[in-house]
Amino acid sequence: MAMRTSLCELFEIEHPVLLAPMAGVSGGALAAAVSRAGGLGLIGGGYGDAAWLEQEFDAAGDARVGVGFITWSLARQPHLLDLALARKPAALMLSFGDFGPFLPQIRQAQVKLIVQVQTLDQAREAVEAGVDAMVAQGTEAGGHGGARATMPFVPAVIDIAQGTPVIAAGGIADGRGLAAALALGAAGVLCGTGFFASDESLASGAAKEAALGGSGDNTERSSVYDVARGLDWPATWNIRTLRNGFTHRWSADISGLRQNLKAEQARFNAATAAGDTDIAPVIVGEAADLVHRREPAHVILQRMMSQAEERLRHLSQMVDPIKRNERMSKLKGSCLCGKVSFEVASSFDKMFLCSCDQCRQITGSAFASNLFTAADQFKWRSGGDDIANYQMPGRDISKSFCRTCGSGVPWSSGDGTKMIVPAGSLQGEPEVAQMYRTFISEQPLWSSTLDQVEAHEGFPS
Amino acid sequence: MAMRTSLCELFEIEHPVLLAPMAGVSGGALAAAVSRAGGLGLIGGGYGDAAWLEQEFDAAGDARVGVGFITWSLARQPHLLDLALARKPAALMLSFGDFGPFLPQIRQAQVKLIVQVQTLDQAREAVEAGVDAMVAQGTEAGGHGGARATMPFVPAVIDIAQGTPVIAAGGIADGRGLAAALALGAAGVLCGTGFFASDESLASGAAKEAALGGSGDNTERSSVYDVARGLDWPATWNIRTLRNGFTHRWSADISGLRQNLKAEQARFNAATAAGDTDIAPVIVGEAADLVHRREPAHVILQRMMSQAEERLRHLSQMVDPIKRNERMSKLKGSCLCGKVSFEVASSFDKMFLCSCDQCRQITGSAFASNLFTAADQFKWRSGGDDIANYQMPGRDISKSFCRTCGSGVPWSSGDGTKMIVPAGSLQGEPEVAQMYRTFISEQPLWSSTLDQVEAHEGFPS
Repeated sequence: MAMRTSLCELFEIEHPVLLAPMAGVSGGALAAAVSRAGGLGLIGGGYGDAAWLEQEFDAAGDARVGVGFITWSLARQPHLLDLALARKPAALMLSFGDFGPFLPQIRQAQVKLIVQVQTLDQAREAVEAGVDAMVAQGTEAGGHGGARATMPFVPAVIDIAQGTPVIAAGGIADGRGLAAALALGAAGVLCGTGFFASDESLASGAAKEAALGGSGDNTERSSVYDVARGLDWPATWNIRTLRNGFTHRWSADISGLRQNLKAEQARFNAATAAGDTDIAPVIVGEAADLVHRREPAHVILQRMMSQAEERLRHLSQMVDPIKRNERMSKLKGSCLCGKVSFEVASSFDKMFLCSCDQCRQITGSAFASNLFTAADQFKWRSGGDDIANYQMPGRDISKSFCRTCGSGVPWSSGDGTKMIVPAGSLQGEPEVAQMYRTFISEQPLWSSTLDQVEAHEGFPS
Repeated sequence: MAMRTSLCELFEIEHPVLLAPMAGVSGGALAAAVSRAGGLGLIGGGYGDAAWLEQEFDAAGDARVGVGFITWSLARQPHLLDLALARKPAALMLSFGDFGPFLPQIRQAQVKLIVQVQTLDQAREAVEAGVDAMVAQGTEAGGHGGARATMPFVPAVIDIAQGTPVIAAGGIADGRGLAAALALGAAGVLCGTGFFASDESLASGAAKEAALGGSGDNTERSSVYDVARGLDWPATWNIRTLRNGFTHRWSADISGLRQNLKAEQARFNAATAAGDTDIAPVIVGEAADLVHRREPAHVILQRMMSQAEERLRHLSQMVDPIKRNERMSKLKGSCLCGKVSFEVASSFDKMFLCSCDQCRQITGSAFASNLFTAADQFKWRSGGDDIANYQMPGRDISKSFCRTCGSGVPWSSGDGTKMIVPAGSLQGEPEVAQMYRTFISEQPLWSSTLDQVEAHEGFPS
């Protein structure tokens, strides 16, 4: 298994997969397991507890891990940044808030900075600031996030990234999602939900069970749990969790929750301690449908890589053989506007580059470039009624053309056995048995130096 | 350009791209243009106007096109189905409501049925009913839709589709999105926003301009326009449009809009007639960021195909060379838990299948399978501190193993020039210059029929 992207180079990792720094879930053991398996694990710095952070860095042991912070929360306790930088993390990720004030210190420590964005304006700011990488996070992600969805958001961010590696997040929990993110142009992915129920995750056993039984259809974004936990999150972001009794009760009545806050917080705290997931949050995203087993993180990552690789190989097979076949046997052609289209065997009996006055008039150029093939090698694909034909009175000269755009299109020889194809209408390179320039006596001076094909006066005998 | 999927087979089309049947936007000319360019155009049946529908089928001329209906609306005027089936559409797509009642008539007409779904339960119903294909539509789509996002929803639908082709919709407007959808396992895509501003689209000039200038960051789902238009859409779905003065005013105050409905409807109707897109809706999705130009539909489709093909080729290159290289030169290995990992040249000097008592104890099996290679061909990747070594007193026998899972891991020969690798820890097939079974005098009876390698008593000389 190997799939190198700019993200692998940037972080010196084998697989372009980062563990999302899920608060209270991505501890040192999980981050280390992801890093040891070839990805990059990020410890979830969360709302900041220095002792917890020290403990989890210790738990990661000698594994190269990074750490992620909630930016607005970090701003209230900047000493956590000192603590994290002292551990020489492989990457530092900042999400949700103004990363600007932290930039000088992070740069001075020569630690790589990843900034997570949920809007194009945020992405522009991050690019402007010269961050090392951006996570473009879709709304389908678990936990806090914004309103854009991964599929259209990632390419839109890439279009303004000016080469800064873009990491896709939100809705990606298996190799199909990884392959899709790479197809969108992402340099890699950041995964949370996919590792939430892993053996090494710090989520409670009850939360893991609930996550494994959950569905993306049964998640929602809401501020319920921020209110219940007494966290003053900016309104820009809210949190996706599984729906449960608590969200059913309060997500449409946040002001009611605020009015009953004391009692509800007591209920919430008790439920959290007891692992009651009908009240305590299960913070996973829409990718919950794609997670089926509790297993070690390295198994999850290895399967993701195998599946992604299988998908990419399958896709390349979907493209290549037909392309090769097409190159050998079929060419397509169309008029300018596309109404008239056709396909034809790519090998032609002969080609006439004809400089006669009529051909020059027909083409408006130095000569016509007409390919000849047997009628049964040719097939119209569209445009029957859109084709007009002109037959020059008293001469064996005709032109077929599209009624809409006037492009020359193929026509049948008088006896119907041949089709004559204007070479300019082809997409691709025809193979030609014999080429001739014809009627060079009538060629204009400006085209007389085109001399790389056999020459005849009139038609060749 | 060619990329064949099951969708191409099903609808006898060249490119796995369907035009979304956008009401009032996807007329006969646009549907025909998409079909003639190799995709499948679907006329937008909308809320049902028989004369309009006849006119647009006529406008499609001899192109093979399909048609899409809003199911709950069709139920109120089922004669439109007769009209559509009489035109022998290449496909009939039903979205938003119970398609069951229409199934017998559609089957009798032998017309292929596509059902669009926004939840997994809807997908299960469609699979159960045996529809010909499903569109799995993400919330990022323009127009009406649900709450799931494309990236995680499409694979979740595929996992329950039992082989029914799944078409991805929502957020896909260029070749990157198409490639990503195929990577997810979709059989193709359904695109609306990408064709909204095309030359052939029936959207107003003002709406096209607004769409081209719009961003996915500036769209939202709301019921504002359904209320304003007097449409009684089920609450399950709402409509994504660009934000404008009208949505700013009313989307958070639907009941206020209902109270002022008469005046607001007059304002709305006047604005629609005047092309005032600050009041009239511009019905595009988050993919608006990816649409930059007004141009013919066939140009849009051709670019999408070229870009998708380029992406897929690029991705296959990302995988293949390294894989080949790896197969020739490097193998990876790890212990069961993954803490200890290594890589090693895939070609080994020799392999001993050793049945001596010690090796049988070390492995707990019939024999050890030890590969020998030069020390400089071997590299630890992780787990230094996790490795324990056991040296048998007085014998040149040792075992290294992972402290956590106890798996045998490689160890160094006494003089440090060789590494001995338990073959079972390798991912992949080693190349071995010479294999030997050793100490067969000590092999147990139950393993004595493993006789396909050269045999020696003790070590070979």
